[in-house]
Amino acid sequence: MTGIDTVIDTVVERAAAAGAKWRATPAAERATILEGVADALLKHLDELWPVADAETHLGEVRLRGEVGRTASQFRLFAEVLRDGGSAEAVIDHADPGATPPRPDVRRMNHPVGVVAVFAASNFPFAFSVAGGDTVSALAAGCAVVVKAHEGHPETSDLTASVVRQALPDPDLLGLVHGFDAGGPLVRHSLVSAVGFTGSLAGGTAIKGLIDQRPDPIPFYGELGSVNPVIVLPSADAAAVAAGFAASLTLGVGQFCTNPGLIFVPEGPDGDTAGDAGGHRVRDAGEFERAIGDAVAATTGGRMLTAKIHDGYLRAVDRLSVRAGVARLATGAAGTVADAVTPQVFSVPLEAFADGLPELGEECFGPAAIVVKYRNPSDLPAVLRRLPGSLTATVHSAVQGGAQEAAQAGGQRVDQRADQGAGPEEAADIVPVLERLAGRLIWNGWPTGVAVTWAMHHGGPWPASTAPAHTSVGAAAIRRWLTPVAYQDWPEALLPPELRDDNPLGVPQRVDGRLRA
Amino acid sequence: MTGIDTVIDTVVERAAAAGAKWRATPAAERATILEGVADALLKHLDELWPVADAETHLGEVRLRGEVGRTASQFRLFAEVLRDGGSAEAVIDHADPGATPPRPDVRRMNHPVGVVAVFAASNFPFAFSVAGGDTVSALAAGCAVVVKAHEGHPETSDLTASVVRQALPDPDLLGLVHGFDAGGPLVRHSLVSAVGFTGSLAGGTAIKGLIDQRPDPIPFYGELGSVNPVIVLPSADAAAVAAGFAASLTLGVGQFCTNPGLIFVPEGPDGDTAGDAGGHRVRDAGEFERAIGDAVAATTGGRMLTAKIHDGYLRAVDRLSVRAGVARLATGAAGTVADAVTPQVFSVPLEAFADGLPELGEECFGPAAIVVKYRNPSDLPAVLRRLPGSLTATVHSAVQGGAQEAAQAGGQRVDQRADQGAGPEEAADIVPVLERLAGRLIWNGWPTGVAVTWAMHHGGPWPASTAPAHTSVGAAAIRRWLTPVAYQDWPEALLPPELRDDNPLGVPQRVDGRLRA
Repeated sequence: MTGIDTVIDTVVERAAAAGAKWRATPAAERATILEGVADALLKHLDELWPVADAETHLGEVRLRGEVGRTASQFRLFAEVLRDGGSAEAVIDHADPGATPPRPDVRRMNHPVGVVAVFAASNFPFAFSVAGGDTVSALAAGCAVVVKAHEGHPETSDLTASVVRQALPDPDLLGLVHGFDAGGPLVRHSLVSAVGFTGSLAGGTAIKGLIDQRPDPIPFYGELGSVNPVIVLPSADAAAVAAGFAASLTLGVGQFCTNPGLIFVPEGPDGDTAGDAGGHRVRDAGEFERAIGDAVAATTGGRMLTAKIHDGYLRAVDRLSVRAGVARLATGAAGTVADAVTPQVFSVPLEAFADGLPELGEECFGPAAIVVKYRNPSDLPAVLRRLPGSLTATVHSAVQGGAQEAAQAGGQRVDQRADQGAGPEEAADIVPVLERLAGRLIWNGWPTGVAVTWAMHHGGPWPASTAPAHTSVGAAAIRRWLTPVAYQDWPEALLPPELRDDNPLGVPQRVDGRLRA
Repeated sequence: MTGIDTVIDTVVERAAAAGAKWRATPAAERATILEGVADALLKHLDELWPVADAETHLGEVRLRGEVGRTASQFRLFAEVLRDGGSAEAVIDHADPGATPPRPDVRRMNHPVGVVAVFAASNFPFAFSVAGGDTVSALAAGCAVVVKAHEGHPETSDLTASVVRQALPDPDLLGLVHGFDAGGPLVRHSLVSAVGFTGSLAGGTAIKGLIDQRPDPIPFYGELGSVNPVIVLPSADAAAVAAGFAASLTLGVGQFCTNPGLIFVPEGPDGDTAGDAGGHRVRDAGEFERAIGDAVAATTGGRMLTAKIHDGYLRAVDRLSVRAGVARLATGAAGTVADAVTPQVFSVPLEAFADGLPELGEECFGPAAIVVKYRNPSDLPAVLRRLPGSLTATVHSAVQGGAQEAAQAGGQRVDQRADQGAGPEEAADIVPVLERLAGRLIWNGWPTGVAVTWAMHHGGPWPASTAPAHTSVGAAAIRRWLTPVAYQDWPEALLPPELRDDNPLGVPQRVDGRLRA
């Protein structure tokens, strides 16, 4: 064994030993401990954010908010454990009269084992050492070993020490550093599942290592997303442009849910009518013009790491020399050192379609492509060819969700008559979007992922390697659980969740009927 | 494109077109159609079983029963659809007062797309064209393309034609034949997930093909299982031996759940004391003796295919020459042509541990290894080293499940005082078994998998490539579903399952509370 192998071996074995006790700890006790971690994170907020700011340049407001979000994730999973539904207890009583006779079968979820988590660069708290993968795995009853992101090693160490103080055994959260640590970690025989948030290249490499195991284990990776936005003709151009520019440049564009493609109606004159940076462009139309103006008024910033910075510049360069793609607008760099500028490009729908799959690839940072369409009926065929995304967004004059409720004082009404545009404007694209992305957003922006029961943060490859699962929200716990069915098991050996008297009061499905 | 590529392309495109309508069909209508398929299978029972018998030699009784089981799977999934819980509807209302303000988010499951199913050899109905993968995918709203098993092509064609007559569009169930069909099928861009039941080698090859896709899709494979049985000292040797021999030889041992390892207390004299077939063996003890006698009294039969027959003979040959492994008993071949004989080998626990991982590999057919232990406390360390299994079984004097209920007139009682052996006899091994296998059986046998709500047919690799999921029972539908979250979506465009007025009456989790 090399040095790093020995280190990983020690950390994983300790985690496995701590995990054996943790998995036997009742869910209600685990809930209380998760709440203690939330308290500890908030208690150390004033120490945590400056260390992260020095490493990531994300700023006080954002980082304080992110620690709050991270703490709230621990609270959500405490709620999930108290609810008990994640055990998915199912009881089928014996039916000796059936053909063939049916045994007593009871099933519930158990922790999968030690979970390896690869931290992301862009959320030094919410998708890192104490992030969604870690908290959902701890909630499931698993020990966790995190491979720290090289972009914020000190934040990682400090976070781990804060979390460990609130855990019954510090070995429940292992932390390893360095590129070389990834291989031995995912190859370790005691690691039972892997969570990853990062790039397509990084995720594909880890998947390759896992597949070389004698027992390939589950890999839950979030590898990239272009997050298309579809602006329907009825939408308000000024509002769309302002919202888009803000979402595009949030956190210097370094969000998994950054809107990288925006489809807008083109101007009345579809012919080529101008020249921008050596590229001939068609008449802009009010949407394109408004978006160009809004992005031109934005300011960029410093990116998370030198590698991400270089990757962004390369991606933008590739776009700027591509035939048919015109530079629409460039924001300001701002005054910080090594700042990058927001950029938007523009391309007609047909040229975009010809440029797939390359033009559908994520460009990590504050850059996007404005795709101009003539008729909404031209969109489905092109949208079907996009890679899987975490989100897809629709903008329209029709109001949705919160807007509907607010306008109607809690009562939702059909606004077709008022607005001149009805939901049927979106009818052809919605079925396409439902197969393209894990979250569909109406008249909003994809950046910002609510940590709730209903949230789904996933989608077809490359948004997720396991599209049936989510990495944010209550259902994220499922990735770290495996069912066990007990057939004709003695009452005295059954977990309490599966007993007929249901002492823990968990939701049970009994003989086919769900009892909440 | 080659000839087979063109064939696959046509079948998959037709399935995708039929699937687009099927996914939009309300769940209640899909339920009625599934029941129609069940009726059609039973109506054609007298035609179906003889075709399968000619191809598989499994006999009338077994094959009639298997068609019945297959029909009952269609009925179970009709029940699942009418229940509505598989939609997993979750509603979080907006909270404008939260920090940050929370949007309205609603999530439910949608069909993943066209599913490719690789049929198994050993259940020409229940794990083949109309088997568990197909019915659960159809129930989910997916079209299916089955790669027929080469062991029963005519049964496959006949089954497909029976099922298609009961479907609204025959293209919902595609069927392709031949080894060459597998590659183009799993590589096809319109195929969204793959189900497989078969060998470790076959499954690994298909996984490799999927991983070469630009968008690797989910692969749900069941690749092999050795199904250990742990006989505790309190168990009744005669009953164990009789039950084991029957389970081992059921269907000429060609069950995924065939018990391939049985751990028994060794005799009082642990020293070498005999010689059998050139191998020195230790004193048998009553368990080993009883098992040897029971297996010697069994009769084998003809296996499903020449390939499986040859594989069985090779595996048995490898065992018979292995140092430390003694041949314990051989059954009769019987009178049918090409019959194989049941065989049991015997090995002390220490030699078994030394022979891992090879001695822990599945030998597909009526062969098993009897592993003799001195003390139950020696078992956990060895059990932890076994590969993942679909099942693990415990035999003990303590009664479980159905037995408990029957004895107590429905009232379960703690029988420690009566039996002399308590559940604590199993206390050390149960936590190990919960991580080793997906289904734990008490005083029963693993062959026979009840098709119910609570069933779990899965486990760590190689039992399953996706240990969070099952291929039998109501939860099997999940493999073919992907969640979509709708954020601030207009009421008029929401699926009925996610509306506040819940017109379909499905179980919903609303603002964190489950409502059954």
